[in-house]
Order: sequence, then structure tokens, then C-alpha cells
Amino acid sequence: MNNAAIGVFDSGIGGLTCVKELIRLLPHEDIVYLGDTARVPYGTKSRETIISYAKQDIDFLMQHNVKMILVACGTVSSVLSNVDKSDSVEISGVVMPAVHAACAATKNNRIGIIATSATVKSGVYGKVIRSINPDIKVVGKACPLFVPLVENGYTAVDCPPARFFAEEYLEIMKKEKVDTLILGCTHYPHLTELISDIMGSDVTLISSGAELAKYALKTMSYNDTLSDREEQGKIELYCTDSVELFSENVEKFLGKNINAQISQCNLKF
Amino acid sequence: MNNAAIGVFDSGIGGLTCVKELIRLLPHEDIVYLGDTARVPYGTKSRETIISYAKQDIDFLMQHNVKMILVACGTVSSVLSNVDKSDSVEISGVVMPAVHAACAATKNNRIGIIATSATVKSGVYGKVIRSINPDIKVVGKACPLFVPLVENGYTAVDCPPARFFAEEYLEIMKKEKVDTLILGCTHYPHLTELISDIMGSDVTLISSGAELAKYALKTMSYNDTLSDREEQGKIELYCTDSVELFSENVEKFLGKNINAQISQCNLKF
Repeated sequence: MNNAAIGVFDSGIGGLTCVKELIRLLPHEDIVYLGDTARVPYGTKSRETIISYAKQDIDFLMQHNVKMILVACGTVSSVLSNVDKSDSVEISGVVMPAVHAACAATKNNRIGIIATSATVKSGVYGKVIRSINPDIKVVGKACPLFVPLVENGYTAVDCPPARFFAEEYLEIMKKEKVDTLILGCTHYPHLTELISDIMGSDVTLISSGAELAKYALKTMSYNDTLSDREEQGKIELYCTDSVELFSENVEKFLGKNINAQISQCNLKF
Repeated sequence: MNNAAIGVFDSGIGGLTCVKELIRLLPHEDIVYLGDTARVPYGTKSRETIISYAKQDIDFLMQHNVKMILVACGTVSSVLSNVDKSDSVEISGVVMPAVHAACAATKNNRIGIIATSATVKSGVYGKVIRSINPDIKVVGKACPLFVPLVENGYTAVDCPPARFFAEEYLEIMKKEKVDTLILGCTHYPHLTELISDIMGSDVTLISSGAELAKYALKTMSYNDTLSDREEQGKIELYCTDSVELFSENVEKFLGKNINAQISQCNLKF
């Protein structure tokens, strides 16, 4: 089982920010990634629809005999407690790893969370953070234009529309004086420079996808399920829409020099 | 059959701009509308996926015994020649009605078309316009940020990011001196004031959804299939994601005082 792959999924390409960190931390692990690009985005859809899609995504990865499933999608992670999970494989979303990193980082007990509409509506970050420390104030804000901005390459610190929306969305975070900000959608790390420029360098930004990758390393280390392979792990990427469209974005998210095999799969819808 | 409903579909809510015009032109007709909100948007997806979704949308409307199907989705309209169509019911997209209106309007034989990436990539407007008049120059431009801007209410003529993207996308249209511009996505009429402000009042804007509604009136008049009902027609709206999310947008697109019944349906995916 130790040499089985790690399964990762997202509604589309955002979860590749988690894969990038996994490759850095765990270069000998095989990774099977699913991006449901035929139905992307999830973050504007209803809780019921997101849960139904997530079940199909998990079933697909289970068929690949993965040893762990990482939900590298902020939106699915926010409803994960409502998704039936198999007993045989651990399934982890971004919420717990991001919350633990944020609670460790905050000094003034004020944490902000920016994410999709569905994630903010779920209220899950507030619930989990308060269960750890009821004295922490949590401020949530949906940022619906961030995903289209990132997917179309408008991420530069001096890009006027990116700055307009970032200033609008982050205004409440500055007003509430959060000292730690969770990037609750796996697309948002592409806006790190801009967000940091607006929030100031004193505010700690938590990349939820990267924290999930770190959590995977810790968990597999603890459970002794890390691969004993010495060569580089294989990266298999699956998408539900065309390979051509998906491939255009892979290099943007994973960087060059990543040797990944990309295939289309059918979740039977 | 004359009192059967007119079927209309779109990937989401954009097609309601066509429904609005239908209600104005044909107030006694029943309308059954389908918005595939669980898989919206279509405009960023591949040709094969769009064709597969369109078939399911058409099957759904056929089950409602509609007398005509209007494809109020610019993206599906652009691949409609590849969708198997039933013999029994006429299916019309926005391309032909918009092209005829544009060819009638242009004086300098230079027509622009702005639409989703999938529509522009299809090249269908160029092909159809040149088949009518090979002397017309056609300029296409994908505007991927327009749909998220409209869906989040950033449409005002003085809204900085809306103006930024509109100026970027329309630059080529001004440079190429088009005197007629087709709004090839049914979301874009919400940006009419801004687009007109940038292009100038001499440029004719063609709303593809509204042209489709006018085409329906003409066709049914000619075929004598208009309803003989004297009371107001019924408006039934179906969506594949939650009714709650869909309802938030209906008033924005149809205006107040429209008495529509909204239900969720399942296309079995």
C-alpha cells in the first residue's frame, strides 16, 4: 500500500497549487489528480450539487487504489463533513490544515478567510476556528471575481482590475485588523503578491492548498505510509473536459519541467 | 400544437435576455426555459462537452412537448450544426438571426463579434456572414471576463474594472472600424451602455438573444403556429442547480412583475 498513489482532486485546475507543493515535499510519491473541468466551477453552485459532484470525484480516485485522498478544492472541503466517506482511505480537505496554521500564526486573535461564495456561505471556518479557540474573531469574505481573474492571467500586482477587486474584497479585512488571512480557495495563491501588497507584510497569508500538502506529509510520516521508492514519482492528471484545454493551464500552475501524463476521463454524466 | 409552449435553453441565466424579449413580443405564448446552472458556464468548455450537454438540454425540452426550441445560448448556438436535431420541432440558435440583423445594419461591411472563447474559436460567425456576403470583413474577440462581471453586477458605465476589460476587448473593434457589433453571448446586453459608450453611438449593437426572439415571432407567424390564447402565457423556468440560487438572478434578468414558476430538474448526470 505504501507505494500506492496519493489521490488529489479539485473542481478544475486550482488544486494543482497543492500538487506543486506535494511534488516539492514528497518527490517520490505517485500522484493521481482529478480536475472536474467539464463542470467547473463548484464555488458558485449549491451545497447539494457540490456534495453530489464530490462523491463522484472520490469514487473515481478510489478506483485508482489511492492510499489517501486530498480534497484540494476549498469549496468541496467546506462541505466535506456531509460527504459519505469510505472507511478504508483517509480523506482530508484544506479546512483543518489551514485553520491549524492560521491559529498558530495569529497573535491578535483575528483571522480572515477569503474564498468562494459557497465556502463563505458554509461558515465552516468560523465553526472550526471557534472550536479550537473561542476567543478568535473570524472574518469571512467571498471573492467571486478572483477565480476568473486568475484563470485569465490577471494577477499582476499592478493590474488595475485585479487591484480594484482585491481592494474591494480586502477592505473589511483591513478594517477588522486581521493579522492572518487564509486563502481558502486553491486559485488564490496566484494573487499572493497583490494581496500581500494590499494587506501589508505584517499579515500572514495561509495557502490552504500548500497547508494540505504539508498535512499529507505529516500524516503519512506518522502512519508510516510514505513510499519507499527512490526514483521520482509519477504524476497522472485526469480532467473531465478536453485534455487540450486542461494542458494550457498545467504549466501555469505546476511550472515547467514537470513530467505529467494528462488524460480525459468520464464520470458518467 | 399552436398552444404548446416555446422551449428556450441556455447554460445558465443569460438566455433570460431572450425570454424577456419573447414576453414583450409574444405575451400570450407559454414558455418553458431550462438553465443548466449545475454545469454553467459552457463558454469556457470544449466543443465535445458543449455538444453533449446541448443534446441533454434539447431532450429535456422535447419531453415538455414544445412547438419550437430556441437556443438562447451563444456558445451552444455556435456548435448547433453538430447537434443531432429532431425532425419534429424546429431548433434555432442565435447565429442566423444575429447575422441577418448585422448584415442588414452594416454600411461599411465591417462587422465585429464579441462572445465566449468557445464561440469565437468556432469561427461560425465568419463562415455564415461570408456565405451571405463575402465582401464583409468579420472581426471576432473572446471576452472571458464579461460573464463573471455581469453575474456579479459589475456592469455600470463608470465601473472601473468593467471599463478596463471592455476597453481591452473592444480595442480591436475600434481599430478595425466595425460599424456593427454582435453581442454574441446572451449575458452581454447587460453591458450595452458601457459598450456603446466605448464604441460610440454610430456603431449598431446587435443583441443576439433579442434577435432570436424576433426570429421566433416571424417564423411562427409565417408557419401559423402562434398561440390563439387570449390570456397571458405561463412562464416555467427550470434549473439544474438549486432554485434558491437561480431565483436570485431571475428578477435581475426579467425585471419585476414577471410571474414565473421556478423548479429544479435533473438531467441525470
